[in-house]
Amino acid sequence: MKNLFNLLFLLLFSSGLYAQVGHTFPEGTFPNEHNIVGAQYPRIGEDGRTHFRVFAPDAQKVEISFRGEMKKGEDGFWTLSSEKPEVVGFHYYQIIIDGVSVADPNGKPYFGMGKWVSGIEIPEGKEGDYYRPKEGVAKGAVREEWYYSNIRKEWRKSLVYTPAEYDQKKDKKYPVLYLQHGMGENETSWANQGKMNFIMDNLIAEGKATPMIVVMDNGNIESFQPRPGEDPNEARMRFGADFGSILLEEIIPNIESKYRVLTDRENRAMAGLSWGGLQTFNITLNNLDKFAYIGGFSGAGRIDTNQLDTAYNGAFKDPKAFNEKVKVFFIGIGSEENPERTKSLSESLKNAGINNIYYESPGTAHEFLTWRRCLKEFAPLIFK
Amino acid sequence: MKNLFNLLFLLLFSSGLYAQVGHTFPEGTFPNEHNIVGAQYPRIGEDGRTHFRVFAPDAQKVEISFRGEMKKGEDGFWTLSSEKPEVVGFHYYQIIIDGVSVADPNGKPYFGMGKWVSGIEIPEGKEGDYYRPKEGVAKGAVREEWYYSNIRKEWRKSLVYTPAEYDQKKDKKYPVLYLQHGMGENETSWANQGKMNFIMDNLIAEGKATPMIVVMDNGNIESFQPRPGEDPNEARMRFGADFGSILLEEIIPNIESKYRVLTDRENRAMAGLSWGGLQTFNITLNNLDKFAYIGGFSGAGRIDTNQLDTAYNGAFKDPKAFNEKVKVFFIGIGSEENPERTKSLSESLKNAGINNIYYESPGTAHEFLTWRRCLKEFAPLIFK
Repeated sequence: MKNLFNLLFLLLFSSGLYAQVGHTFPEGTFPNEHNIVGAQYPRIGEDGRTHFRVFAPDAQKVEISFRGEMKKGEDGFWTLSSEKPEVVGFHYYQIIIDGVSVADPNGKPYFGMGKWVSGIEIPEGKEGDYYRPKEGVAKGAVREEWYYSNIRKEWRKSLVYTPAEYDQKKDKKYPVLYLQHGMGENETSWANQGKMNFIMDNLIAEGKATPMIVVMDNGNIESFQPRPGEDPNEARMRFGADFGSILLEEIIPNIESKYRVLTDRENRAMAGLSWGGLQTFNITLNNLDKFAYIGGFSGAGRIDTNQLDTAYNGAFKDPKAFNEKVKVFFIGIGSEENPERTKSLSESLKNAGINNIYYESPGTAHEFLTWRRCLKEFAPLIFK
Repeated sequence: MKNLFNLLFLLLFSSGLYAQVGHTFPEGTFPNEHNIVGAQYPRIGEDGRTHFRVFAPDAQKVEISFRGEMKKGEDGFWTLSSEKPEVVGFHYYQIIIDGVSVADPNGKPYFGMGKWVSGIEIPEGKEGDYYRPKEGVAKGAVREEWYYSNIRKEWRKSLVYTPAEYDQKKDKKYPVLYLQHGMGENETSWANQGKMNFIMDNLIAEGKATPMIVVMDNGNIESFQPRPGEDPNEARMRFGADFGSILLEEIIPNIESKYRVLTDRENRAMAGLSWGGLQTFNITLNNLDKFAYIGGFSGAGRIDTNQLDTAYNGAFKDPKAFNEKVKVFFIGIGSEENPERTKSLSESLKNAGINNIYYESPGTAHEFLTWRRCLKEFAPLIFK
């Protein structure tokens, strides 16, 4: 028994990816907040530069995805420091070892890009406090809620955020926001990468957002891989296709049977980022009897403004009726992800009499900092 | 915008780790249940053999940890099939690419061995139904519960299982089991690797276990890495040292303030696996005023039976008093992990008049199938 512990400990301790004793860290740097306990790399400088270090004495080539090749030292450690500061916010990365892209074993894995990858966070200053846990702010909880899908013939799970007061106010019923991730992400992405629970906790504590339940599910239903002979574009359309019926016929009824929720359309919202924004538009605009609040975060680009009358079965045809039904129609995007088309969509809709709110996140790209900010802007507007 | 989607899609689709079209799977095999959607490898045969396949055309050597070197094919895919069936249950593995051990990007990552690694499951037959979700069985939920630790000066989280009826029976209070993971694992391990939620759901639905709340937290408080000049053995002792005070002074009060729980010792249990079993014994046996039920799963090996009188501040000195206080003292282990010492400990304790229950899981090693079974045996005994 004791030997087993010792063996296990040796396995743990001999992990070469830890920095060795005696190594000096680049000045003014701190470990990435997503590192596992004790892991010192990657590090981020106070100047926003990133520093990677990987022990791989037998590899021929080691790269960090989106960043470049590492340089091998005589001690078997490969290093790479960015020349310039990286953009503030959360970025995915992988280590590429002799051509194989993998997650960093020293970091918490995030589901993104269709697989488990790593994340590095270039912290914001005080302006990022809205997504950080704060002392004195009551914490809601995110729970896994399992259900059987008859449509998919499989067990699936929703992640459900309940506000801090939910367990105390035992007879109160709550409105629900259905909140979807992007392509290649999954139901864990909003809570993990997006820190949605802390954003909601803080907004609710400040009285800015109405206490609400938030439901996140996996909108990527099938594999990205085309079936034999299938066009990759068709596969792409297929892989999220079932989600509308799963949401309407299975997820919503499951949530409404298990949680104390208000079930009329005025108490139901949906929002999504990127691909999840497209799903949101497809589902809500075709089902305006079920949703009164709509948010697209970096995911509104596919509405053809020349054919507004026929889009979504004519949802935009009668602006007055639309504006009465849809209490908030939110279109957000980052300033660094070519926002022009989205901005002009918002304007075309306004010109056509369709009320909508355009929000542009300054200095952020097609990444989670844009979407954290979108949630911070969107959540206070709904259920009011 | 459309270009961005296309680029993202290409990134997803070009992931070489997917099996290519036209490849034939070994007969009678199915994908590992922990693979991400669409990933075909690793596969498990109906005969219990495992089959690994990794695309790494530029690597010089690819291995699967605990299993051996892979063989490179002309198509750039490396393959390895086990010669014999693997032991039934859940096993950790890593891909080792030119000497660097990493998690399989095609699989769900599990925190074990001090980092994020992969898992392969050799399924049991019908006898494994107790840890599978069943239709008709109401599902409890596992939620993240954040709290600020003054001891550690950091935000930490407990995972909290609430039984399915918790949200319905709004005035009922519940007993609590504190359930700890092993060395190098974390608060997610019991729910992820251990499937504890389904085990509890099924036991409760069958009327075998009393509905209870189960709290899991991270008992590995510090890095495994020794401080400069520190003995690795000291580091090992240090890294979980704070956990007792965090549990007693922070976790338990936090849970008791937020959940409807019974707070007397007769409604509080603690159990743990491996290293978590040692922590359980240290914490409960030194605090018998706070715990009435104790479980050690593969983690009881360090009690010196020659010094029973002085162990744990004399907890065993008065067997009659001990037996009155400790309603269940459970000692479990797998038959394939050298159970002799643990078995003789149970017998020595019995000879000394200390009631205890010894359970040996047939055919399983120092792995999660042993611990799932231990939980299945232990949970029905407590709070009765």
